[in-house]
Amino acid sequence: MDNDIVPVALEKAYRLLNLGATSIVSAEFGGESDAMPAAWTCPLSMEPFRAAAVVDGPHFTRRLIDESGMFALQLPTAGIARATLALGSVSKNDDPAKLEKSGAHFFFADGFRLPLVEGCAGWMIFKVVPGEERNAKAHDLIIGECVAAWADARVFANGHWQFEEAPPSLRTLHYVAGQHFYAIGEAVNLD
Amino acid sequence: MDNDIVPVALEKAYRLLNLGATSIVSAEFGGESDAMPAAWTCPLSMEPFRAAAVVDGPHFTRRLIDESGMFALQLPTAGIARATLALGSVSKNDDPAKLEKSGAHFFFADGFRLPLVEGCAGWMIFKVVPGEERNAKAHDLIIGECVAAWADARVFANGHWQFEEAPPSLRTLHYVAGQHFYAIGEAVNLD
Repeated sequence: MDNDIVPVALEKAYRLLNLGATSIVSAEFGGESDAMPAAWTCPLSMEPFRAAAVVDGPHFTRRLIDESGMFALQLPTAGIARATLALGSVSKNDDPAKLEKSGAHFFFADGFRLPLVEGCAGWMIFKVVPGEERNAKAHDLIIGECVAAWADARVFANGHWQFEEAPPSLRTLHYVAGQHFYAIGEAVNLD
Repeated sequence: MDNDIVPVALEKAYRLLNLGATSIVSAEFGGESDAMPAAWTCPLSMEPFRAAAVVDGPHFTRRLIDESGMFALQLPTAGIARATLALGSVSKNDDPAKLEKSGAHFFFADGFRLPLVEGCAGWMIFKVVPGEERNAKAHDLIIGECVAAWADARVFANGHWQFEEAPPSLRTLHYVAGQHFYAIGEAVNLD
């Protein structure tokens, strides 16, 4: 793992999602892996840190989540906006070489088999919470409990986002539609 | 309603939430109303446009939602950051004059009794989806179907966010922690 990537304490990891940035969801099962953008995510609780992500049933990634019981959410930055879109523009059901062609680069955290996307601002690995089959079926809502989290220390440290001193390419992406995002902007501090 | 406030077609209204901005949730029942910030929201489907928001059981707002079956989500801007925090810093359970003291100003849309917060970038009114009692109880997750939506046409038009030409005070807020937000920033357009 990159020197800038540092662990995030699980009790502070929900703050990675507070910002409302677009995420990439990734998963692995039986030697197959996939990753796709998911703009629709939501923290559910802080301790334990649980979160929900909408991953539609037909997606290749969804099958890997359902079969492995694990998924990762990671927060792509402006620097990898094009690869992020590429991961959403084709299904691995249609192109088995999707990941290789996307321009995204992957790495692995010790003890986990899920591919993680390089160049993100934060990474979270979740174990699917049992007993939530109805949410998966009715809403395509996958609920997980975070078991490990990391961040790029240049933009997230001591449980807080801090983009001011970092390169603009490390700013999180917030999805509009089509091929359009906004990067996160100026701090609004009221204390 | 203000001249800049225009209706948003329901099939495009999910894009108001795509950006991941912090919201204010408001509700009304029996002549009582309340509003509070809610950073944890998530679209669930586009047509019909359904969304979920985490509103903890003890909140005054939650009781109004449970009893009325209605709630509004609206997206505060940098210009009303201080009032947004004020709405989250005290419970109406403790101070019945919370809304009046917050600095927030409210208006009403024709045909609805919920208070809407002036100075937001977008507003959505939801009817609680029946049969979701378990999500409310287990996760404090309130699921609604959008019945009306509006946006400030200076920042959202034709189904797209467009902050470039608008005053910075109209930028959406993205919550960090404590009294800290980031405003939405620069466009990242890849087409």
